[in-house]
Amino acid sequence: MNSGDVAWILAASALLCIMIPGLALFYGGMVGSRRILNMMMMCFGGMSIVAVLWAVFGYSLVFGNSVAGAGIIGDVTEYLGLDKLLAADPAAALPGALFAAFQLFFAGITTAIIAGAAAGRMKFGAWMAFSALWATLVYFPVAHWVFAFSSPDGSVVGGWIVNNLKAIDFAGGTAVHMNAGIASLALAIVLGRSAGWPKSEHTKPHSRPLVLVGAGLLWAGWFGFNAGSALTAGQSASVVFLNTAVAGAAGLLAWAAVERLRLGSASSMGAASGLIAALVAITPACGAVSPLGALAIGAIAGAVCSLAIELKFRLGFDDSLDVVGVHLVGGIIGTLLIGFFATAAAPNKVNGLFYGGGFGLLGVQSVATLAVLGYSFVVTWIIAKVLNITMGLRIHEADELRGIDMAAHAEEAYLSDEEPVELGSPHRA
Amino acid sequence: MNSGDVAWILAASALLCIMIPGLALFYGGMVGSRRILNMMMMCFGGMSIVAVLWAVFGYSLVFGNSVAGAGIIGDVTEYLGLDKLLAADPAAALPGALFAAFQLFFAGITTAIIAGAAAGRMKFGAWMAFSALWATLVYFPVAHWVFAFSSPDGSVVGGWIVNNLKAIDFAGGTAVHMNAGIASLALAIVLGRSAGWPKSEHTKPHSRPLVLVGAGLLWAGWFGFNAGSALTAGQSASVVFLNTAVAGAAGLLAWAAVERLRLGSASSMGAASGLIAALVAITPACGAVSPLGALAIGAIAGAVCSLAIELKFRLGFDDSLDVVGVHLVGGIIGTLLIGFFATAAAPNKVNGLFYGGGFGLLGVQSVATLAVLGYSFVVTWIIAKVLNITMGLRIHEADELRGIDMAAHAEEAYLSDEEPVELGSPHRA
Amino acid sequence: MNSGDVAWILAASALLCIMIPGLALFYGGMVGSRRILNMMMMCFGGMSIVAVLWAVFGYSLVFGNSVAGAGIIGDVTEYLGLDKLLAADPAAALPGALFAAFQLFFAGITTAIIAGAAAGRMKFGAWMAFSALWATLVYFPVAHWVFAFSSPDGSVVGGWIVNNLKAIDFAGGTAVHMNAGIASLALAIVLGRSAGWPKSEHTKPHSRPLVLVGAGLLWAGWFGFNAGSALTAGQSASVVFLNTAVAGAAGLLAWAAVERLRLGSASSMGAASGLIAALVAITPACGAVSPLGALAIGAIAGAVCSLAIELKFRLGFDDSLDVVGVHLVGGIIGTLLIGFFATAAAPNKVNGLFYGGGFGLLGVQSVATLAVLGYSFVVTWIIAKVLNITMGLRIHEADELRGIDMAAHAEEAYLSDEEPVELGSPHRA
Repeated sequence: MNSGDVAWILAASALLCIMIPGLALFYGGMVGSRRILNMMMMCFGGMSIVAVLWAVFGYSLVFGNSVAGAGIIGDVTEYLGLDKLLAADPAAALPGALFAAFQLFFAGITTAIIAGAAAGRMKFGAWMAFSALWATLVYFPVAHWVFAFSSPDGSVVGGWIVNNLKAIDFAGGTAVHMNAGIASLALAIVLGRSAGWPKSEHTKPHSRPLVLVGAGLLWAGWFGFNAGSALTAGQSASVVFLNTAVAGAAGLLAWAAVERLRLGSASSMGAASGLIAALVAITPACGAVSPLGALAIGAIAGAVCSLAIELKFRLGFDDSLDVVGVHLVGGIIGTLLIGFFATAAAPNKVNGLFYGGGFGLLGVQSVATLAVLGYSFVVTWIIAKVLNITMGLRIHEADELRGIDMAAHAEEAYLSDEEPVELGSPHRA
Repeated sequence: MNSGDVAWILAASALLCIMIPGLALFYGGMVGSRRILNMMMMCFGGMSIVAVLWAVFGYSLVFGNSVAGAGIIGDVTEYLGLDKLLAADPAAALPGALFAAFQLFFAGITTAIIAGAAAGRMKFGAWMAFSALWATLVYFPVAHWVFAFSSPDGSVVGGWIVNNLKAIDFAGGTAVHMNAGIASLALAIVLGRSAGWPKSEHTKPHSRPLVLVGAGLLWAGWFGFNAGSALTAGQSASVVFLNTAVAGAAGLLAWAAVERLRLGSASSMGAASGLIAALVAITPACGAVSPLGALAIGAIAGAVCSLAIELKFRLGFDDSLDVVGVHLVGGIIGTLLIGFFATAAAPNKVNGLFYGGGFGLLGVQSVATLAVLGYSFVVTWIIAKVLNITMGLRIHEADELRGIDMAAHAEEAYLSDEEPVELGSPHRA
Repeated sequence: MNSGDVAWILAASALLCIMIPGLALFYGGMVGSRRILNMMMMCFGGMSIVAVLWAVFGYSLVFGNSVAGAGIIGDVTEYLGLDKLLAADPAAALPGALFAAFQLFFAGITTAIIAGAAAGRMKFGAWMAFSALWATLVYFPVAHWVFAFSSPDGSVVGGWIVNNLKAIDFAGGTAVHMNAGIASLALAIVLGRSAGWPKSEHTKPHSRPLVLVGAGLLWAGWFGFNAGSALTAGQSASVVFLNTAVAGAAGLLAWAAVERLRLGSASSMGAASGLIAALVAITPACGAVSPLGALAIGAIAGAVCSLAIELKFRLGFDDSLDVVGVHLVGGIIGTLLIGFFATAAAPNKVNGLFYGGGFGLLGVQSVATLAVLGYSFVVTWIIAKVLNITMGLRIHEADELRGIDMAAHAEEAYLSDEEPVELGSPHRA
């Protein structure tokens, strides 16, 4: 065990925790001032319930030895309660307890991302139930497929996408972003549109500065996500870090440039969204491309996603905060562009089409994409339908128009002091 | 010296620094809009004056060789000005300068926590004087008792609680949280209640989103606090990190669940408070329990503290932001539950009652608790009384009602632009 | 290659990323509510365009082998596109890709600092063009002078200030802070004063809490800046970290104390500014002084800068957010005080005047200061003039008075929900 590697993954895991307030701000600023608390509570609450399930059985489902060696799901009994991780394993490159903590945030954040599709109209209890079911039935299996490596000696069997298909997904383009993105689409369809959509004034962003700050904190946390996924502190994490920095910047500029050309000015909402879209796209690709490849992927994601967010108006689903346009589309872009931009000089050591690598890699990436999209959409749709029938997903329309915060949490986000300030002669203290 | 350990403690110390804006937001959002600046200034100002004292003599008082080998207080002359730490000590596991920086934030943050009890009514100069005196007379001795280990060869003698009593307090349940919590009670009693208490409208939270963001940043920083206290990047820090993540999530859910049952809905204030209460409780216990133990301790702290914050209304003291209900009660819960949940499989290698360990550990934890509570309450009460007589603690009632920010800092937190926005035909730039 | 060092620089680089939202908040809170988005966009946008240029050619200009061995500028062809950094260099102490990522943030943040001088009145397109030109023509050369070390064997030749003059600038007092500070002066002069200056009501801080939070995040990020500049995780980084903590606290207190004496109360704006001024001043000196020296430098910077920010009213330039008073003056203070406070016991191993070191060091520091100030002022002035003539720097005065956010980004920062909240009988969800 190398203490430098441990030091980096400890720091990376703490960076992941910064993504929770980051996401809560990013989403919270985008909704109305009587909807922000619910939005933030969906992020914190979803994260928390998944974290508890993770400790009880989730880690086992993802990283337990694959049941029947099939690569579909881990053995739920293997790490039940995580007690087994208290003992140091001298053979492990990283303490199991640390890897479990690092991956705990992946599960929680992925689930919280979906909240953006359900802004302002979903019962809080239903959201918590959805989070628990979705993590268990969708995230844990898909993460097993993508993140559970088989051991070299064959004693531990992992998931089919990473070991059999051998698709490249460095930090979660499939398992995290397109998974959350397609689930958002399914949830948005079952949940239905906000009252007054698409002209619902009350769902406009009430604080764009919060959106930008949230995006900035997410960027910082994303280095834990991507460079942490190297699981060592060395050349690989370094290249990944650099690619993540460059891609984010390029995505911000690309979205801003498209807006400037189409609308005459670049908005802060666009810049923040471009940054996040690019970070989504570079997530699977960060270990497979060069810095210029990262720049290209970031820029393509920023530009394409700036157009993709208008799909919802054409197709008529209310993905309130554009999880589909940013995470689904960005995740697909990044996962497929690996097939073009991958270079064997990068840590993943594979060539894509532009580096003479043939169509094989692109095919593999496409199969992984379709498998995750198909599974996640269908199971998420079923979960949402069942919850809608059993406990009901929507709050009353009157509460929705009034702002969900009061209905769901009996709180208002902002209060003013009522006494007038007399500026005349304040005493000094 | 191992560079991996150094890397982790460097990162952990920077994470601790994030707790300063985190705490300022957590507290600042909870007060009225004409009280937030003072609240934030108490956090930043208290932290800063303690940091300066730390460099001058505080580190010596805590980590200097115990005077007369008594385990009561360190030798103030030993590291005066910290010049001695410029020289590398080849025998040390960690550079002394880094350990001093890491522990500097412990001292500053512990002091800043107390500010929550004095919201909206304390002279800023009196607060700064209180911070300096409290750190010197209360925190430095208590930290010596709890954090100063004797060297194996006996050449350096540390504090009595950790070396003689051998109580378990991994990262500061006694020295940090119950210490700050009981000091808050003493200060709140001497300071007296806010004007109009308990019906003071003007002290209601003006921005709950800031409270949640602050709680999120505190969570991230807490990993530096707890996992950093391992002082190495290895198995111990890894287990501590995992326990801290799980406990926080469980506490958030437990407080929310109690609210839902009692009041019909889970509030954002409750979720944020449950998260912090659980983090407080796991602080002493993070190295002694299993992940399921951490889950239990976090959930118990979240549930119990959600009830404990109502004590102040029964007993009639104005602990404005519930430092007593969260830090004192949470700290006691965590410190005593070690006696039940400790398992020898965890880094501290001791069994509590539930693992066949007998009542000994619970007794030891109780003695440590009573010693810190007794000492801190009495000395804090004396400090507050002396300051009240000499310089006066309270601002004028009129200033308090008007909002302390103008009286204490001659500032208002928020200003609106006065010109009307004409949305008609903006020029494009 | 040492994984502990890599781990620390990975974490430090992520901390640098936190400075982006930190700076955006620090500046954004200081302007009016219809100017904040533009201010934040200048930070994020300037950072992003510099990051892209960095990947394409900037890193080569700074860290490429010095052209003709002259120490003036690096070879632009050497690392074009950074592809070369994909290959691990077994001889390097740190992966080149990581060093490039770490330094990417230096370039981006330095450029973004200048935005404070141009608040509320500069065309966004002109700012983006300015950022690109300024990074290329000013930052990249000056960073080469200061940060590019020659290799011991002479095979790589670096910049003249660090290798020939041998001035001490641990983390960027010259290249970062006085460079950005003097550039702010040049830009402010060419750009001209805000409408109504110095009585422009609309440019008053609209949210002081954001300023304090931003300052707190900057403090945390600054540990990445300063202690990261050690490039190893050991004694040197540890001393630097401790000095950075102590100096910041002392600066906050010093500015607050001066305000209290002069104006009767300490403001939050002053505390935040004192913290930043001290961090600026300790940046070049953090490796050269003792903790008490750091305390003195921090306190001096806090006190002097609190007076220096009034220069602009005397001299009549509109450096809106005091970049000159804080970064230029603070940077000069720190760079020159090394000549007095440097002690051979600190990592830089040189004595200043107070430690019997003679006037030599002070002379060297002065030459470096004058060189950077002269070059940066002249070239920045030319860039600003050329942009003013070609594309125009200023927005229309009517847009400026109305608030630049709508004119430059077609957005308002804050929106209220329009429906009245009926608190009567909310349904529970």
